[in-house]
Amino acid sequence: MSNRYAVVLAAGQGTRMKSSLYKVLHPVCGKPMVQHVVDQISQLDMKKIVTVVGHGAEKVKDQLGDASAYVLQEEQLGTAHAVMQAEETLSNEEGITLVVCGDTPLITAQTMQKLIDEHQAAGAKVSILTAKAEDPAGYGRVLRNASGTVERIVEHKDATDEEKLVQEINTGTYCFDNKSLFEALSSVNNDNSQGEYYLPDVIEIIQKQGETVAAYQTPSFDETLGVNDRVALSQAEKTMKKRINENHMRNGVTLVDPDQTYISADAVIGRDTVIYPGTMITGTSRIGDNNIIGPNSEIKDSTIGNGNTIKQSVVHDSEVGNKVSIGPFAHVRPASSIEDQVKIGNFVEVKKSVMAQGSKASHLTYVGDAEIGRDVNLGCGTIMVNYDGVNKHLTKVEDGAFIGCNSNLIAPVTVGKNAYVAAGSTITEDVPAEALSIARSRQTNKENYVSKSRNNNKA
Amino acid sequence: MSNRYAVVLAAGQGTRMKSSLYKVLHPVCGKPMVQHVVDQISQLDMKKIVTVVGHGAEKVKDQLGDASAYVLQEEQLGTAHAVMQAEETLSNEEGITLVVCGDTPLITAQTMQKLIDEHQAAGAKVSILTAKAEDPAGYGRVLRNASGTVERIVEHKDATDEEKLVQEINTGTYCFDNKSLFEALSSVNNDNSQGEYYLPDVIEIIQKQGETVAAYQTPSFDETLGVNDRVALSQAEKTMKKRINENHMRNGVTLVDPDQTYISADAVIGRDTVIYPGTMITGTSRIGDNNIIGPNSEIKDSTIGNGNTIKQSVVHDSEVGNKVSIGPFAHVRPASSIEDQVKIGNFVEVKKSVMAQGSKASHLTYVGDAEIGRDVNLGCGTIMVNYDGVNKHLTKVEDGAFIGCNSNLIAPVTVGKNAYVAAGSTITEDVPAEALSIARSRQTNKENYVSKSRNNNKA
Amino acid sequence: MSNRYAVVLAAGQGTRMKSSLYKVLHPVCGKPMVQHVVDQISQLDMKKIVTVVGHGAEKVKDQLGDASAYVLQEEQLGTAHAVMQAEETLSNEEGITLVVCGDTPLITAQTMQKLIDEHQAAGAKVSILTAKAEDPAGYGRVLRNASGTVERIVEHKDATDEEKLVQEINTGTYCFDNKSLFEALSSVNNDNSQGEYYLPDVIEIIQKQGETVAAYQTPSFDETLGVNDRVALSQAEKTMKKRINENHMRNGVTLVDPDQTYISADAVIGRDTVIYPGTMITGTSRIGDNNIIGPNSEIKDSTIGNGNTIKQSVVHDSEVGNKVSIGPFAHVRPASSIEDQVKIGNFVEVKKSVMAQGSKASHLTYVGDAEIGRDVNLGCGTIMVNYDGVNKHLTKVEDGAFIGCNSNLIAPVTVGKNAYVAAGSTITEDVPAEALSIARSRQTNKENYVSKSRNNNKA
Repeated sequence: MSNRYAVVLAAGQGTRMKSSLYKVLHPVCGKPMVQHVVDQISQLDMKKIVTVVGHGAEKVKDQLGDASAYVLQEEQLGTAHAVMQAEETLSNEEGITLVVCGDTPLITAQTMQKLIDEHQAAGAKVSILTAKAEDPAGYGRVLRNASGTVERIVEHKDATDEEKLVQEINTGTYCFDNKSLFEALSSVNNDNSQGEYYLPDVIEIIQKQGETVAAYQTPSFDETLGVNDRVALSQAEKTMKKRINENHMRNGVTLVDPDQTYISADAVIGRDTVIYPGTMITGTSRIGDNNIIGPNSEIKDSTIGNGNTIKQSVVHDSEVGNKVSIGPFAHVRPASSIEDQVKIGNFVEVKKSVMAQGSKASHLTYVGDAEIGRDVNLGCGTIMVNYDGVNKHLTKVEDGAFIGCNSNLIAPVTVGKNAYVAAGSTITEDVPAEALSIARSRQTNKENYVSKSRNNNKA
Repeated sequence: MSNRYAVVLAAGQGTRMKSSLYKVLHPVCGKPMVQHVVDQISQLDMKKIVTVVGHGAEKVKDQLGDASAYVLQEEQLGTAHAVMQAEETLSNEEGITLVVCGDTPLITAQTMQKLIDEHQAAGAKVSILTAKAEDPAGYGRVLRNASGTVERIVEHKDATDEEKLVQEINTGTYCFDNKSLFEALSSVNNDNSQGEYYLPDVIEIIQKQGETVAAYQTPSFDETLGVNDRVALSQAEKTMKKRINENHMRNGVTLVDPDQTYISADAVIGRDTVIYPGTMITGTSRIGDNNIIGPNSEIKDSTIGNGNTIKQSVVHDSEVGNKVSIGPFAHVRPASSIEDQVKIGNFVEVKKSVMAQGSKASHLTYVGDAEIGRDVNLGCGTIMVNYDGVNKHLTKVEDGAFIGCNSNLIAPVTVGKNAYVAAGSTITEDVPAEALSIARSRQTNKENYVSKSRNNNKA
Repeated sequence: MSNRYAVVLAAGQGTRMKSSLYKVLHPVCGKPMVQHVVDQISQLDMKKIVTVVGHGAEKVKDQLGDASAYVLQEEQLGTAHAVMQAEETLSNEEGITLVVCGDTPLITAQTMQKLIDEHQAAGAKVSILTAKAEDPAGYGRVLRNASGTVERIVEHKDATDEEKLVQEINTGTYCFDNKSLFEALSSVNNDNSQGEYYLPDVIEIIQKQGETVAAYQTPSFDETLGVNDRVALSQAEKTMKKRINENHMRNGVTLVDPDQTYISADAVIGRDTVIYPGTMITGTSRIGDNNIIGPNSEIKDSTIGNGNTIKQSVVHDSEVGNKVSIGPFAHVRPASSIEDQVKIGNFVEVKKSVMAQGSKASHLTYVGDAEIGRDVNLGCGTIMVNYDGVNKHLTKVEDGAFIGCNSNLIAPVTVGKNAYVAAGSTITEDVPAEALSIARSRQTNKENYVSKSRNNNKA
């Protein structure tokens, strides 16, 4: 196999995004556009990926990290000029070089591989990824001769009326013989109205050398979408969502309404899990089999086992075991571990805590900085008082303990095994195992108080 | 009218669903596919419906119950073989027999009736439900002669290039003369690459007998969708949702966004009810007039009167009267009765309780196993302590009582008429009518405590 | 410029809406249809707008207020009869008169301006707004002669088969020379099957006078949708939503899923604000830059600054500063002011209160009728007891105070600067600055209580 290189164009400003966020860093399904592109290219056995950075260069580098080398395009003088910045890094290499725009988040490794295959089969020095556009207005048209060979690319504004009828368009993704690319680049000039160096000019230069220009026309026009404003960004999101969701459905996940289900490109979901509408599964969440998720739940960077129900709730950066019930309207905050058969009911918040097997916090409870043992019952309104205004402290509730409703456990504090805290108690000291702890006042009934006070008011 | 019979094919495994749930039991808009089919067939004055079961036979029977008779297809040897299993049950009957697949959840009684009408008008022995497919690839094509009579069905793989251009396709739903069907079935063989007995072969056999083959082409291609994987399942859901929702809109219900409104096939909704997006109304819910439901609410198997507002909330298996306000973020759990003009505010859970007319639980309250009288005010943070770790007990709050904030009512307990419970009290004994009950400690202010402790810390 | 007048037809009953709400008052993206129409017309330098009211006349007047004059059509005898009601008001004026239906909420000022431009350029006495319909069935067709001049309008039911092939349809919006209009109206009769006076008849009358009839064909067929039932209402909502949302996206707002984002026509949103699905922004909300809103949030008539996060929450009629975090599952009710860097966490309700800079109510808290100073910490479960069953009272918590968990502040009450309220206290009297206030019982542990009671139960 020839050596393979890739140049990713990621230096443009993206004025039409009207954003202080650099264009290629805008996310699609939660992942920046340029990361999608590099993730796909990385599947193609590349010897080196070079990303051309400019605006927001440091942030792009931070995003991509070691997955790419970088060259800086200080001024944005056109696509040929951008590729030219990689000359020092690449021009001495033998092999083929893909050039891909960092704002085409939908392009796939499969399509790029087909472009490479066509390039090699045709013995070409340059090959163009093309697509058939229903409405080609605005795109460069690919003009072929009678035998089907590519003659040239004509920009929309330069096209004759007849040429404008051509529906095969240049997607802006290319495969080059690396040496030919850099030789030709040195001949590109900027004699045009914008004063820019255009990469498509390389095609004509190579062709005039008598070399073959090939093209692979992808059937997936959708893949070639370049994102220049946020309307296009939303279209990219929609197409990516459809792709991700259909993949999960074919693998055995039921999405009741795939149009309203938002799953990151990197999430994993098991068979017979049913996801109801309005649900977002983001980051690197891993979800097992036979779960019911949603409606309107948000799972972020969490690991969820099998057979759980998570309704109208939020779970972030946590682990959930099996046969757990969460929600509706529950919030599991980062660094929590919810073990098997736990119940987290409505209006319950869990934060940086362990709830061991079979424990329950069914309603209106705050479990913060706590270690809850097995088969513990946290009554309605239980609060772990973890913060004294200066520091956070740990609460331990050991196996089998029963915490009465509306109790405060003032951390640091331990409630021992099988202990029982009476409802309405504020617990400031440890409760021994098997003890009953109570901290509340006796009830006094003042008879006829209401009717008397009513009469007094009348008086 | 001739006797009518129906055979529902529901024995296939559904491998491409990648599910441990049997294919025809996958729900569409909350109802299993095969139930949709049988519900529609049942509107057609059937003398007998026979469902052919195989994989998951017992679960299909449990689902359909007495609506159908059942025959077992132990091995899945093709559609003709499946119908053959009904021989003992049906072959001696005079009349017409519909054969319908259990994985076509969108088919309607109206369309099947039209097929029967065509069948009878044509004096046919077999009639095919056909449809015009935009993209017929993969389907059996219906070939007609110059006069429009059906000549034969040709499978996609056996079709000539010319035949492949035919857009009229066989939907797999048929109407037969019952006697002709079973006679012809005995002649079907399995001399084909799959070694299966195919039902369309019956058509050719009957035709060779000189009998008329008719066809009714439905204009609703959508209705004929067969579900083989979860992508198709989501398409069926979308089409069914559109059908259900347009019906409600035409009847005077406003759906702000019908694409994000999920209503079961069996729900009833009154005029001038407005449903906001992200709302699910499931099961056999009955909803009256002039309600505002949603956004993001879930109503399951509940009866809702008129003039209510239910926002960002969940109501299950309960009754709601008139002019009730629920939500946002409230949860009404099963077996609750919420009477007229009640308010259930944010972060309130009601479970297996009655709230009588005019009562309020405005915030952060748990009403569990309780009978709340009329015009009761449950202060913020009120908790019915219904569970002692072993049993659940009843709380009664009589008419006009006022429960102060953050109170615990430890069941079994009764708060009498017009009684007043002071905020922060834990009530363990009955409170007489008109009494004030208090169970809390006096306040002590330790002056300059904070500044002293600050100084001590510095020291 | 000629004087400009407009007649808005808003008297029809709208039977097919099946509603007790008058047709033109049904909202699209939160604003009644007729208000959309009048808002657009009002951008065109009108000397006078006359709305023809009939059914629900008073409510239409209440809606539109001073933006229009009104004439009453007591009986609905057709569109010509409706315009005729404006005779007394308008017939003596020189100028041009737009006639627009009040049930076409999508029509834009730009399109109406183009109709006026065409009208004036053609020197016409009447000009028709037309559009090209993919499926023109049911519409009046616009028949032009060889030179392109409008010959006449033919209703669908009166059209020949050839005429039915015409795709250019009459949208029902017209521009007239005012004098010609009212002169012609007096000649319209009701010799037709419905016995109604039809406005299109005016066109033929004017034409027979030898005057020019012009037409402007809008490329936006969508704009011309007339709403007659709630299915069409939902289509209008969808189109309006798309228009609003694309406008925001082009201005630099990210809508992760514009299909599930509901923004009123009058809301303002700043750059780099990201809105997640299931979010409604209604009324006259003004939202600044760099906010994260949603998923599943509802913002109504509120002013939101910059850099805030509002997740799975509801904010109504309130002000939010900068760098505030709200949610998930929080509820900010009317007349609240949430200042910079405040945190409103899960299961927190704020009502008619100020929370000054840097204060926190992180969980399960009710802030009602309160003035919370700067850097106050309201512990989990804090409740402002603002209601004594008769009146609402004010709570003040001064700068730097710390309220322990599960405390009740019984209003009217003031907690002074830097004061500290112990968890579980019910505060009935003012707490001085720097004081510690405590109102709870001591804890008693009854050792081995649980095991003894277990043994007793066994006994």
